[in-house]
Amino acid sequence: MKYPNSSKVYVKPKESTSNRGMSLEEDINVSNRYYLAHDLAVIYKKPTPITIVKVDYPKRSAARITEAYFRVASTTDYNGIYLGKYIDFEAKECESATSFPFSSIHPHQIRHLKDVLRHGAIAFIILRMTSYDKDFLIKAEDFIDFHDSTARKSLPYGWIEENGFLISHTYQRPCDYLATLKEVFDL
Amino acid sequence: MKYPNSSKVYVKPKESTSNRGMSLEEDINVSNRYYLAHDLAVIYKKPTPITIVKVDYPKRSAARITEAYFRVASTTDYNGIYLGKYIDFEAKECESATSFPFSSIHPHQIRHLKDVLRHGAIAFIILRMTSYDKDFLIKAEDFIDFHDSTARKSLPYGWIEENGFLISHTYQRPCDYLATLKEVFDL
Repeated sequence: MKYPNSSKVYVKPKESTSNRGMSLEEDINVSNRYYLAHDLAVIYKKPTPITIVKVDYPKRSAARITEAYFRVASTTDYNGIYLGKYIDFEAKECESATSFPFSSIHPHQIRHLKDVLRHGAIAFIILRMTSYDKDFLIKAEDFIDFHDSTARKSLPYGWIEENGFLISHTYQRPCDYLATLKEVFDL
Repeated sequence: MKYPNSSKVYVKPKESTSNRGMSLEEDINVSNRYYLAHDLAVIYKKPTPITIVKVDYPKRSAARITEAYFRVASTTDYNGIYLGKYIDFEAKECESATSFPFSSIHPHQIRHLKDVLRHGAIAFIILRMTSYDKDFLIKAEDFIDFHDSTARKSLPYGWIEENGFLISHTYQRPCDYLATLKEVFDL
């Protein structure tokens, strides 16, 4: 996750007709806002979990948190409803061209994916392979099967290409995972 | 929401055989942990939304947030999956014995309840009337119907008693809304 301490301003590449190039998180948020505005789905990113230690309550102005720490998420980052179904997913960017390290997904999140699957959720991972500029949708069941049956410490790119589903993008939906979902899960 | 600036420590009332008396939020969290541990449902409170302004990255220790502000939630506080269904709700405590003010629920949250209902969610409000020590489950559709058709600024207690469904409690499930849900929505 990127936080604004670096205070970088996103500069749109010249001549680009695409809305992409921001972070995967931002691309998903833009797509989610499109889905909501067009009444296709109601899916949100959960706020970043924080442990708050100190809060100042200055008179006549907003409460100010002056000491807090990031907490490990116990669930995935995104959930919501689509066509009456409970949707749950995690999104990750991967810079390596050869594989996606399992260490990038916290064990709590894998356990959560198993939990919601057991209860009938549509669960998946969105993986952006930045070296190829490709976004893949990987079914949580496929990811878990491989993860639980291998001694490897990562998902090889060959596996991702074979088992993942390419996510397309448009200007208004820079990560149009709903289109992929519809096909993959036959919705 | 209560934050630990008051640093009060919860003291269990003497002779009590009940687990209640904590905040509604804590009672729901305890119940949710029970549901999860017994594989009945996967429902979590979303983290409190925060806008982070400054983060320190000290060497060799955890990143520390030194300036942040509470943000108005754009959705309800709780969601998850139960019996394959998408569940979404907001929880509120009300100290008034006569009515629950609409101003306690943010317009964003009412809009969100309408959004998820349209997509087939099971949506509701859990209302703790502290004067009566009673928790009610109110269907989001009933709440919205009344809210949108009245000139009143609050939900009268008579209406709550007539239209709400009492939530029972046990030691392990201090706000056992799943039991109520099962009956009310015929699940």
